[in-house]
Amino acid sequence: MRMYDLISQKKEGKTLSTEEIRWMVQHYAEEEIPDYQMSAMLMAICFQGLNRQETLDLTLAMRDSGDCLDLSRIHGIKADKHSTGGVGDKTTLVLAPIIAALGIPMAKMSGRGLGHTGGTIDKLACFPGFTTDLSEEAFFANVNRIGLAIAGQTANLAPADKKLYALRDVTATVSQMSLIAASIMSKKLAAGSDLIVLDVKTGSGAFMKEEADAIRLAETMVSIGAMAGKKMAAVITDMDQPLGRAVGNALEVKEAIAALSGDGPADLMEVVYALGSRILLLSGVAEREEDAVKSMKQCVADGSAKKKFAAFVEAQGGDASYVWDMEKWKQAAYRIEALAEKKGYVQTIDAEAIGIACMLLGGGREKKDDAIDLSVGILLLKKRGDVTEAGEALALIYANDEAKAKEAIRLVQGAYVISEAAPASVPMVKAILDGANNAKSSCI
Amino acid sequence: MRMYDLISQKKEGKTLSTEEIRWMVQHYAEEEIPDYQMSAMLMAICFQGLNRQETLDLTLAMRDSGDCLDLSRIHGIKADKHSTGGVGDKTTLVLAPIIAALGIPMAKMSGRGLGHTGGTIDKLACFPGFTTDLSEEAFFANVNRIGLAIAGQTANLAPADKKLYALRDVTATVSQMSLIAASIMSKKLAAGSDLIVLDVKTGSGAFMKEEADAIRLAETMVSIGAMAGKKMAAVITDMDQPLGRAVGNALEVKEAIAALSGDGPADLMEVVYALGSRILLLSGVAEREEDAVKSMKQCVADGSAKKKFAAFVEAQGGDASYVWDMEKWKQAAYRIEALAEKKGYVQTIDAEAIGIACMLLGGGREKKDDAIDLSVGILLLKKRGDVTEAGEALALIYANDEAKAKEAIRLVQGAYVISEAAPASVPMVKAILDGANNAKSSCI
Repeated sequence: MRMYDLISQKKEGKTLSTEEIRWMVQHYAEEEIPDYQMSAMLMAICFQGLNRQETLDLTLAMRDSGDCLDLSRIHGIKADKHSTGGVGDKTTLVLAPIIAALGIPMAKMSGRGLGHTGGTIDKLACFPGFTTDLSEEAFFANVNRIGLAIAGQTANLAPADKKLYALRDVTATVSQMSLIAASIMSKKLAAGSDLIVLDVKTGSGAFMKEEADAIRLAETMVSIGAMAGKKMAAVITDMDQPLGRAVGNALEVKEAIAALSGDGPADLMEVVYALGSRILLLSGVAEREEDAVKSMKQCVADGSAKKKFAAFVEAQGGDASYVWDMEKWKQAAYRIEALAEKKGYVQTIDAEAIGIACMLLGGGREKKDDAIDLSVGILLLKKRGDVTEAGEALALIYANDEAKAKEAIRLVQGAYVISEAAPASVPMVKAILDGANNAKSSCI
Repeated sequence: MRMYDLISQKKEGKTLSTEEIRWMVQHYAEEEIPDYQMSAMLMAICFQGLNRQETLDLTLAMRDSGDCLDLSRIHGIKADKHSTGGVGDKTTLVLAPIIAALGIPMAKMSGRGLGHTGGTIDKLACFPGFTTDLSEEAFFANVNRIGLAIAGQTANLAPADKKLYALRDVTATVSQMSLIAASIMSKKLAAGSDLIVLDVKTGSGAFMKEEADAIRLAETMVSIGAMAGKKMAAVITDMDQPLGRAVGNALEVKEAIAALSGDGPADLMEVVYALGSRILLLSGVAEREEDAVKSMKQCVADGSAKKKFAAFVEAQGGDASYVWDMEKWKQAAYRIEALAEKKGYVQTIDAEAIGIACMLLGGGREKKDDAIDLSVGILLLKKRGDVTEAGEALALIYANDEAKAKEAIRLVQGAYVISEAAPASVPMVKAILDGANNAKSSCI
């Protein structure tokens, strides 16, 4: 087999066989195929696409390029949740304790944030002492005892995907739908859960700006996961404005704690309940969506979800007193208001611009090894549909550097579009996809 | 400027500016842009194309990546001729002495052969002592004295093209029309002649299998050359069967000498006269095509072209007695006939298969540093339209190895298609394109 011939085939719009894709991924991972051939292939794929079978083959080949976690030591159906990334997205912090409190184990691998979207691991780092650097034994023991553990991606999951992603990132080949689906699903399949729910974001702050693209991506991933033997579902959710009111690591954790205390913003809770329902229905814990939502609300109301969260923080070395005493959280040095320049209705809030403002304040990474300031961020006082007077505060900027704060204020003001007419109401959950478990394909 | 953005632009079908293309080529040549980004760009170009201005910009940027020859020390209008490569193509050996004998200086850079097509420099190496390794002074002195010199490509002409071509060759991005045109024209423009005629081959033995593609390539090159201030013309010629009867270095030189002695095969002479007419008309030496052909025939008939050839061979260190005494040529050890398996008309002769048979005999290179056997080759006794009996000889195989000869016989027999009906007559010259000199753009 020669890589030249495979590039040539794909360039001409022909289909690559399972064997060809597996050969290509394996030899690329082993550095026997050079980057310059793979990038030509990736660009050809951007134009000619991959069909469903090719996408599955690519996913499985990348999954099998590294470790596949064996979660059989955890009792019951193991659930995982993945978000395609958004601004103010603290969903995992609220959802995971609720699901664990309802008896479904979640053994999650999470990443750090990059660019304008945050990562769960950065948020959890706000608890003094918290670590995601767990031994395999501690990871399994915690899940069996508490029902929840979140580890950093220390295992060698889908290294071929990592190498391919780095190449896509510098050759303008990131946006191809099948490549995105295969990249996400290869890691999720290697992470070993039985049930995977996907939160596919769409809108100005999401990677998928168009709803139709988000649906297509979700369909592809659900179908790939189902073909690989997983219970699958996807929820398409709005990311045209940030989720909730808090953007920035510590601010988001505080908002998540508020949510677990029964005081969460409506949009965040809608996403949490939509995703949680899929997990409860697919795992058989609930038979009807209403029952699923009812039991989730119940374990927020009775405090069991919040207790589960505190137990989880403590089990991973974190100071759980921060869950109970909000006075302990360190404030950023400056809190400055971003004021409305005119009166009217908030029409949209450009989520990407808010994410970038948070990054500029020091709360996010431009490059993957940048240090971040956990205390900075933006609290959105007005959200879509709210009325404002000219000069009224739209948002609060939490900063440790006055010059950066001023820059952030300009960005935040620019992110708000204010108009005379009230905006049309936008559903938070735009679509729900369920995947039948119609095939089996274990890690080899 | 970032290469990422340029790839992204081209991927989306946008036009690259002159400045962007120049920046890209320069930084690629200086190894500041990695191969993996350039190969993604090349593949995007395969799908989105380059418009005429982009193709010109790419050509000029590659031209300017190395030396540009200054031929001003040569008197008069300097002519150059380029063939896109064919089997049995000894046109330069016949055309150049005729043109020089008519007073138009030809200062040519030539390459060695690769794959199934031969190179002029290999053919000239058949003269004992002949060298293309000329000093700059000797090169100019010879052109001024004899009107003709052919040097190997020792100057650093268009190094960016060389680097790009090597990358295209391993990423399945060779066949894109604008990239081919820019590659050829960058070297031709750097070589410094005022007038360039192109012999664009089409048919089974040519890179351009389809006549429409050959015409499109010719149009692109003529237009690029004219925009760069050159007098340009292109002739589209048939390469559906080998040109002339001889394929193989020494055999082809002997056929060229025969042609200069007035005994050339009709198809070869038609190509020579078509190309020569363009040179004589563009340079103003002739006003009408009939006059041009008449004067070329005249200088073959009166022996002046052959004398010019001998003087040229001698001036470059070769033993010119080989021009006059055909008995001196060393024969290959074996001469074996390839016989017709049935009677009928020769319908086609697959030129590529004949070229490969010659390569297998040792007469061509698979890789660029292979040594070659100058004495081997194939003499086609029957050509398209000829009648043969079953068992009659179609061709003579000249070999120095019996096993290889047998393999070549099979290939040659397979290359001949014999049928009951006479084939339709195929014009040798399929189209002629002239380019107006409508712009100026000197080497910078």
